[in-house]
Amino acid sequence: MNKIFNPEPSEWREILKRPTKSVEDIEETVNQIFSEVQKSGDAAIAKYTELFDGFKTEETRVTAMEIDESRNLISQELKDAIFLAKQNIEKFHSAQKTEKIIVETSPGVKCWQEKRPIQKVGLYIPGGSAPLFSTILMLAVPAALAGCKEVVLCSPPNREGKVHPAILYTADLCGVTRIHKVGGIQAIAGMTFGTETIPKVYKIFGPGNQFVTVAKQLSTRHNVAIDMPAGPSELLVVADEDANAAYIASDLLSQAEHGADSQVILVATSKELIDAVEGEVETQLQQLPRKEIAEKAIENSRLIYVENQDTALELINEYGPEHLIICSVAEEFYIENVQNAGSVFIGKFTPESAGDYASGTNHTLPTNGYAKQYSGVNLDSFLKSMTFQKISEEGIKEIGPAIELMAEAEGLQAHKNAVSLRLRELE
Amino acid sequence: MNKIFNPEPSEWREILKRPTKSVEDIEETVNQIFSEVQKSGDAAIAKYTELFDGFKTEETRVTAMEIDESRNLISQELKDAIFLAKQNIEKFHSAQKTEKIIVETSPGVKCWQEKRPIQKVGLYIPGGSAPLFSTILMLAVPAALAGCKEVVLCSPPNREGKVHPAILYTADLCGVTRIHKVGGIQAIAGMTFGTETIPKVYKIFGPGNQFVTVAKQLSTRHNVAIDMPAGPSELLVVADEDANAAYIASDLLSQAEHGADSQVILVATSKELIDAVEGEVETQLQQLPRKEIAEKAIENSRLIYVENQDTALELINEYGPEHLIICSVAEEFYIENVQNAGSVFIGKFTPESAGDYASGTNHTLPTNGYAKQYSGVNLDSFLKSMTFQKISEEGIKEIGPAIELMAEAEGLQAHKNAVSLRLRELE
Repeated sequence: MNKIFNPEPSEWREILKRPTKSVEDIEETVNQIFSEVQKSGDAAIAKYTELFDGFKTEETRVTAMEIDESRNLISQELKDAIFLAKQNIEKFHSAQKTEKIIVETSPGVKCWQEKRPIQKVGLYIPGGSAPLFSTILMLAVPAALAGCKEVVLCSPPNREGKVHPAILYTADLCGVTRIHKVGGIQAIAGMTFGTETIPKVYKIFGPGNQFVTVAKQLSTRHNVAIDMPAGPSELLVVADEDANAAYIASDLLSQAEHGADSQVILVATSKELIDAVEGEVETQLQQLPRKEIAEKAIENSRLIYVENQDTALELINEYGPEHLIICSVAEEFYIENVQNAGSVFIGKFTPESAGDYASGTNHTLPTNGYAKQYSGVNLDSFLKSMTFQKISEEGIKEIGPAIELMAEAEGLQAHKNAVSLRLRELE
Repeated sequence: MNKIFNPEPSEWREILKRPTKSVEDIEETVNQIFSEVQKSGDAAIAKYTELFDGFKTEETRVTAMEIDESRNLISQELKDAIFLAKQNIEKFHSAQKTEKIIVETSPGVKCWQEKRPIQKVGLYIPGGSAPLFSTILMLAVPAALAGCKEVVLCSPPNREGKVHPAILYTADLCGVTRIHKVGGIQAIAGMTFGTETIPKVYKIFGPGNQFVTVAKQLSTRHNVAIDMPAGPSELLVVADEDANAAYIASDLLSQAEHGADSQVILVATSKELIDAVEGEVETQLQQLPRKEIAEKAIENSRLIYVENQDTALELINEYGPEHLIICSVAEEFYIENVQNAGSVFIGKFTPESAGDYASGTNHTLPTNGYAKQYSGVNLDSFLKSMTFQKISEEGIKEIGPAIELMAEAEGLQAHKNAVSLRLRELE
């Protein structure tokens, strides 16, 4: 692990650098598949499903029978856990609902903002070794609360043409309206253009590998929105001498096991803690099934000693971590002053895993420094705000002259005229 | 004007088609300027300012003296109008503030969402014939309400090296922290990378020509967010036989004067109204200074007759207009059921110009059908939501076992371990 003591602010940029990858060679593949899916629809989807997933099929939609079956393939214990998580996620995201507020900005000028659901959304859930059913909870629960009419989920089939039962079970439980066994670039292309069987959606959510990430970027050129730009997962822990080194090590490792390119950083105001955490990481690492992955991420990790809280805070805000854990007696100071972080975990009994699964907050969060300007997924991600206004005779008399003046000053005579015409009739 | 009667739903897509333009040739220019600005900073900015704006300078920052001077160059009448508009915009956007709500999702599990300002934002205001100071109100007022620390405004100088006084005056009034006389692609590149004098920002807002639009798109590849994808301005009016043809014509024309590629559409349940509006447009058009522009937009406009409200509604939702004016006795039906529109104007005394300038709603709105998934600019556009959670001993005992089960089922042992470690110590 890389230990760094009292770095100069001029070195921060280099120290906090994230791994970046070139996507240019991927782009060509993505463009190719997009244009084929746009042209040939399901036929192109079938072609690439066979090529990438080794499964040949014409029919990608998951049937009611397959969903029924999935219920018997999940243990009652896991069902109960999923249910608890779902409840908490619902409670947290329900609290984000806002009411319509009518503001009379000038006498007779009534304006209001209302949020209405994005009618059609697409959720992408990767396949592979780990079935990420928790991500379905994070996306389908707020989509249902928002009132999205069509919630399409795509996830790749395995070689036998199956999707993991935990995915089917959770999707059905959370109100996903249709599931397609399609993965990767071809899934994103299908939801972008629509095919004979896959509906075109207006916004695509969800994680994925580099191919999916580039495909989502490309979809934004075809009138589709995406949840946010994606990057490797990150965790920054800020801690002082009283923090528990074993807990911190376990949190760093839980982030490190996501991928070899995961970023884990400890910022501490205690040198002893840094050494203790380093030792604990070594020990705990040995017992992990995903040791090889975590090891690589840990190699690139940083243990940074700084002299005081102010410097620690500045460093956090400069980095803008996806996840921030605060283990410090000065937790109030950090809570109040942190400006850039996706999700913040406070105190020794708040591991990041809690937010990944069951506390109720969302785990789809901005990485790569995007916490500086992006929100994590929340209820609003599935809504768009619209404004409304209704002006009375009194109202247009009140603000009309100002509009005329401003339109005139901007050289927009027809804008002025639309008001003048009305004011003349009211004289 | 194109009149269409009772079109089949299968024809809608063609009828509602927006003009699209290829941007590939622009991209090359944009890429070139971006890489020069990234490499050479202010020197590259100066080079392109001389090339495109015909003004040679080393110093692009507007001085306090220039701002002082601008105050004397604006009439008191216009100042009063700007002040009224600013007040209304403040009232409307202030009402969008949300409180932090703490939710105890399970006993001992406290979660909350808080919105914090994006620290550094950039506003782009085009130059040219019309000084769009109204757009400064729409962007700088919510930026100030949100609490953004640095608000940078770029606007191109004219050949004498001046920016229109209305722009300087409004920017200063609304709390813009620095103004640079830089326009076009080089302005967007400057705010994306930062130069010796222009700060790097996290999110860029504002309208612009095709070059600016493509430059904003490119900036998103360099860790910058943008307000929304841009396209030509649009207005759809839905009206019935009781609507005032002259008013409707004036509204259509106010949109048409924006640009030759503006989109104006009337959807009416009365054939007589369609003819009357057509006549009124012809008459009013003759008196407009921007007649030539408006004429071109009107050529591409559509007057669509449909038999009933339900069809009209479906058509509106299919199109997703930036601006929607409702002039119908059935206004409640439309208000309640419209799903896709940026800003909605209700009744005969609510011209779209009102929202452009002074009613208080924002005029930076989704075009090109993006009303299906994007909000117009609002207070939240300048904030990002962060989540926080603090779990007690009781809390982790409550949800810990569910986390362990789910992490195990997803094959993420280190995630499980972070909880197990804590639960063991609490036994």
